[in-house]
Amino acid sequence: MSEFLSCTVTLDPEGTTCEVPAGTTLQAAVARFGINLTTPCGGEGTCGKCRVHVLGDGVEEPLPEERALLPPEQIEAGVRLGCRARITGDATIRVPAGSRTAAIRVLPVGARRQTELSPQVTKHVVDLGEQALDQAHSRLEQLRQCGDLRADLQVDASLLRRLPDLIGYDAGQVTAVVGDGRLLSVEPGDTSAACYGLALDLGTTTVVADLVDLTTGKTVGHGVAGNRQSAEGHDVIARINYADEEEGGLERLRILALQSLDEAIAQVLERQGVDADRVYDVTLVGNSTMVHLALGVSAASLGRLPYAAVFGDAVDMSALDLGLSVNPAARVHVLPNIAGFVGADTVGAVLAAGFDEDDGRVRVLADIGTNAEMALRRGGDLIVCSGAAGPAFEGARISCGMYAVDGAIEAVSICGPGDEGANGEAVQCKVIGHGEPRGLCGSALVDVVAEMLRAGVVDETGRILGRDELGEAVPEALHKHVLEEDGDVSFALAWNSDGAPIALTQRDVRELQLAKAAIRSGIDLLIEQAGVTLDGVDEFCIAGGFGNYLDKVNAIRLGLIPPLPLDKLNYIGNGALVGAGLALLSRSLRRRGQQVARQAKHLQVADTPDFQMRFSEAMMFDPTLDVPESRT
Amino acid sequence: MSEFLSCTVTLDPEGTTCEVPAGTTLQAAVARFGINLTTPCGGEGTCGKCRVHVLGDGVEEPLPEERALLPPEQIEAGVRLGCRARITGDATIRVPAGSRTAAIRVLPVGARRQTELSPQVTKHVVDLGEQALDQAHSRLEQLRQCGDLRADLQVDASLLRRLPDLIGYDAGQVTAVVGDGRLLSVEPGDTSAACYGLALDLGTTTVVADLVDLTTGKTVGHGVAGNRQSAEGHDVIARINYADEEEGGLERLRILALQSLDEAIAQVLERQGVDADRVYDVTLVGNSTMVHLALGVSAASLGRLPYAAVFGDAVDMSALDLGLSVNPAARVHVLPNIAGFVGADTVGAVLAAGFDEDDGRVRVLADIGTNAEMALRRGGDLIVCSGAAGPAFEGARISCGMYAVDGAIEAVSICGPGDEGANGEAVQCKVIGHGEPRGLCGSALVDVVAEMLRAGVVDETGRILGRDELGEAVPEALHKHVLEEDGDVSFALAWNSDGAPIALTQRDVRELQLAKAAIRSGIDLLIEQAGVTLDGVDEFCIAGGFGNYLDKVNAIRLGLIPPLPLDKLNYIGNGALVGAGLALLSRSLRRRGQQVARQAKHLQVADTPDFQMRFSEAMMFDPTLDVPESRT
Repeated sequence: MSEFLSCTVTLDPEGTTCEVPAGTTLQAAVARFGINLTTPCGGEGTCGKCRVHVLGDGVEEPLPEERALLPPEQIEAGVRLGCRARITGDATIRVPAGSRTAAIRVLPVGARRQTELSPQVTKHVVDLGEQALDQAHSRLEQLRQCGDLRADLQVDASLLRRLPDLIGYDAGQVTAVVGDGRLLSVEPGDTSAACYGLALDLGTTTVVADLVDLTTGKTVGHGVAGNRQSAEGHDVIARINYADEEEGGLERLRILALQSLDEAIAQVLERQGVDADRVYDVTLVGNSTMVHLALGVSAASLGRLPYAAVFGDAVDMSALDLGLSVNPAARVHVLPNIAGFVGADTVGAVLAAGFDEDDGRVRVLADIGTNAEMALRRGGDLIVCSGAAGPAFEGARISCGMYAVDGAIEAVSICGPGDEGANGEAVQCKVIGHGEPRGLCGSALVDVVAEMLRAGVVDETGRILGRDELGEAVPEALHKHVLEEDGDVSFALAWNSDGAPIALTQRDVRELQLAKAAIRSGIDLLIEQAGVTLDGVDEFCIAGGFGNYLDKVNAIRLGLIPPLPLDKLNYIGNGALVGAGLALLSRSLRRRGQQVARQAKHLQVADTPDFQMRFSEAMMFDPTLDVPESRT
Repeated sequence: MSEFLSCTVTLDPEGTTCEVPAGTTLQAAVARFGINLTTPCGGEGTCGKCRVHVLGDGVEEPLPEERALLPPEQIEAGVRLGCRARITGDATIRVPAGSRTAAIRVLPVGARRQTELSPQVTKHVVDLGEQALDQAHSRLEQLRQCGDLRADLQVDASLLRRLPDLIGYDAGQVTAVVGDGRLLSVEPGDTSAACYGLALDLGTTTVVADLVDLTTGKTVGHGVAGNRQSAEGHDVIARINYADEEEGGLERLRILALQSLDEAIAQVLERQGVDADRVYDVTLVGNSTMVHLALGVSAASLGRLPYAAVFGDAVDMSALDLGLSVNPAARVHVLPNIAGFVGADTVGAVLAAGFDEDDGRVRVLADIGTNAEMALRRGGDLIVCSGAAGPAFEGARISCGMYAVDGAIEAVSICGPGDEGANGEAVQCKVIGHGEPRGLCGSALVDVVAEMLRAGVVDETGRILGRDELGEAVPEALHKHVLEEDGDVSFALAWNSDGAPIALTQRDVRELQLAKAAIRSGIDLLIEQAGVTLDGVDEFCIAGGFGNYLDKVNAIRLGLIPPLPLDKLNYIGNGALVGAGLALLSRSLRRRGQQVARQAKHLQVADTPDFQMRFSEAMMFDPTLDVPESRT
């Protein structure tokens, strides 16, 4: 197969086409159409969820891993694994809705911290007829004087070039757009009512754009897109390697990041009927790797010891320089990174939670995601650390895990020893879309294992008990859910219409244990370093896309978060995005973000002397834990 | 003739070629080779100085104006007027040295005002091995800490992208280049000895680049080039019209300006063996039109009432954004304009003369050129005005005028009534190159007319007297120099080897009168507005490319400058360029330039009530004037 052969791929039923070199995977090919395949396994050909229908020829013969995962009749019908199968010639393909990530549910943003409305970008309606030109040295000076604009306003050459047309003889009323000490634009007439900003969260998997009306401070809409970089690697390490090792890889990931952002932006602008030229200010958050890649900066040093970021401070530039499809003169503020794994997203969450200032309380923040970041504020000190939780909470590396789309089990209730007679079903599942269960939603994993623990089918070490190990108090109806095969024990939550179980394996529980240990050991370390006890913690904030779906009691039961009174636990939603929005609304909070990043003390968890022991202990469950009764 | 026909023009004897559309003038074609033709008449086909040899075909038939100006045997031999003759096909051409402006003499810069050395750009050698990375949040932060660089240093995304390579694991010693609050570059090893800046003067006719060593403050070399815009118009009005009326004219003039600057820059860099990447700071002056055009900003409003500039303030940008061939990250500071005809060049001269601060004295500055700018400092007030002197001082619109190249008469002595017996010659001429006289150098015009006035061959109204009107005291030997033809009177300075006179016509004297009236009426107005008398003027500074060639006594005699004691008159040379150099060396003077431009009070001379009378009076000569005896 020549690597130079170009193949035409046609998307059915849309009929759109693209050109790819022979050897391209179906996943990479459909990414050209802006479609992200769902790949909970990280594109390793083990989950079988990225199915693509190939209509006719043009794709290589089915591979052994495809035959292992797909039923023969589907293979026969042209169903292939997007992450494995490679294109060999012109091909026509169809991507089933269930294989796409477009239907991802995204959390509404959390309760917004109160802040004064002092956006960086403001509009000033100027009547150029008010003053004769001969009193001013130049047309620009006339604009400044008539508009009472600041004297030291900077003007880029590109705007200077357009000024003669904009403020010529009969200009009359115009609107000056000012921001970051610059004149960003001059628009004919009074456009003061249309002044927008965008808060962008460039997530590893999902990109969210909040459109904010800078005149009112209100968020008027959201746009969501998958991060197209996913086609080149599921997690940050895969993308760091791709950028580092592939020819042109860094530039490609930069462009994919911008395309993803543009998609989310275009979506919300179209929905709200707002012209892209009316967006004058942008704030961007993301983890350190995402921020590096979006700016086209090599993230290679983030992938190896000592995991150093290339830059930490906030970066300010124009939308033109970054390459975003809004007003080219729009200012872009990329929030600062604190460390290699404590990025601009954490700074956003810190702002959202109000951790940038000392309010006299001891507060802890946990931003839960593939990489979890933790922060503690006590007095003048802000301490931060991170933990590699892995993608367990996103449903990846869990045998039955899937995104929160139709068919995903999003809540489970297991009839345990203390429960009064279950009415028939020992395990009750709530399925998104109320249809047939297909897998387990990552956010429900905590609930499931907490229920298994409560029901006594998992012990304190995380071991799923065999049928003959179950205690006498375990209801008989649960026994059939315990599956034993070749010495491997798993727990079935439900069965689909074909009779195949949707089951949690021992390995799945171990993944959860590793994830919660990474988070909890960080939290404990912060509390210890701050010199306080658990009783001294006044507030515990939970942030992250999964935060609001997390059951507080179950999170405590599993030991993911410390046993605190429930009224001390607060969800703040997607803190990163909320913080980006705050930086858009308030110049002082934007500056505060920069200060926070500079002043925060970063702890390298793995460098602490008793890390191994602390981590091992955090892996354990404590069935004797006094868990709060009331649920929120 | 199809306008789409492309013709190949070959330059003999170099053999280099270029492609031009049919219909292109020879002048525009040779400009593509970087050659500027001398066109004292402004390219109007009347001076016959822009001769080009056409070897063979490819150019239209000789035009009537060519036949009128060129001897038949030259026409026969292929000599053509560059400003008139148009290319019709492939052609081979040769440009005689005498037709080129490359040999223009440029004044050495004047005595430099003392200033502290505080350049904007500095270099900092940093040993990255001095501190472990884990104490810093990022590699950039490590560089900052090790180099003790300012905490709020900005870094552009383009440099961020290169940082991983520049300050990677084994970077060791590097040199950080800092300027304008930004990190401009990071270079391997210790490059602190090579840190350069350029002061640029973009003149309407000539472009000068001063290369300055920012570590010592010394100017280490000069580069000179013709302004290639001349091919599209000789004066600012012609270029404003070209930019306004021709499709793509503005962009073409912008590019020609940059090419001219680059040529002067390349010349000095090559001579001094300095790499373009080692130039990190640039200051640029020029009249308002030149500055507008170099930035690609329409100058149309400068060409019509009320002659308003588009912008006044200084403009800061990167060399990349402007398009200069130095380090792309180099900062460029374009000095501010005060008004449409009082530009950055005047601000430069104001800085050079020290008029930006009050030293308790009353001082007047006249920057003499095609457009003359005048300034007066008294106490806290700085008043400026301008006058359209026209190109008389540059040798254009003078029948025998030419640039200061070989063959130009640069000084004249006329045997007048008070002179003791002239030894044979009534008129003595000093010729550049000591060869045959070909014309009159613009800077000598003042001397010639002053001498004619002193000798009694011109009266107080500027009229050249006929032979029978000459007073009895006028030596007989002068009579033959007075030429009378069809009632027109002219005065021959010399005769060339063909016996043709090099003569000043009545029209030439009128041109000079208009020029000096424009300057003198402005000076008088400033003095009057400042509420002082001539006796109250403590210093009079003369700036401009012609300043140092100007004889003070003759300038007073003609009334170009007021009758002040000679010790109050000081030449400051090319004040615009000197000022640009000062802005390069001193951050405080750079700021001062901005303040000066804001605070200066601009007088519209033509708007003053008694302007017509004042101007008419300034046209006159005063033969009774008590002129200082001693000459400088």
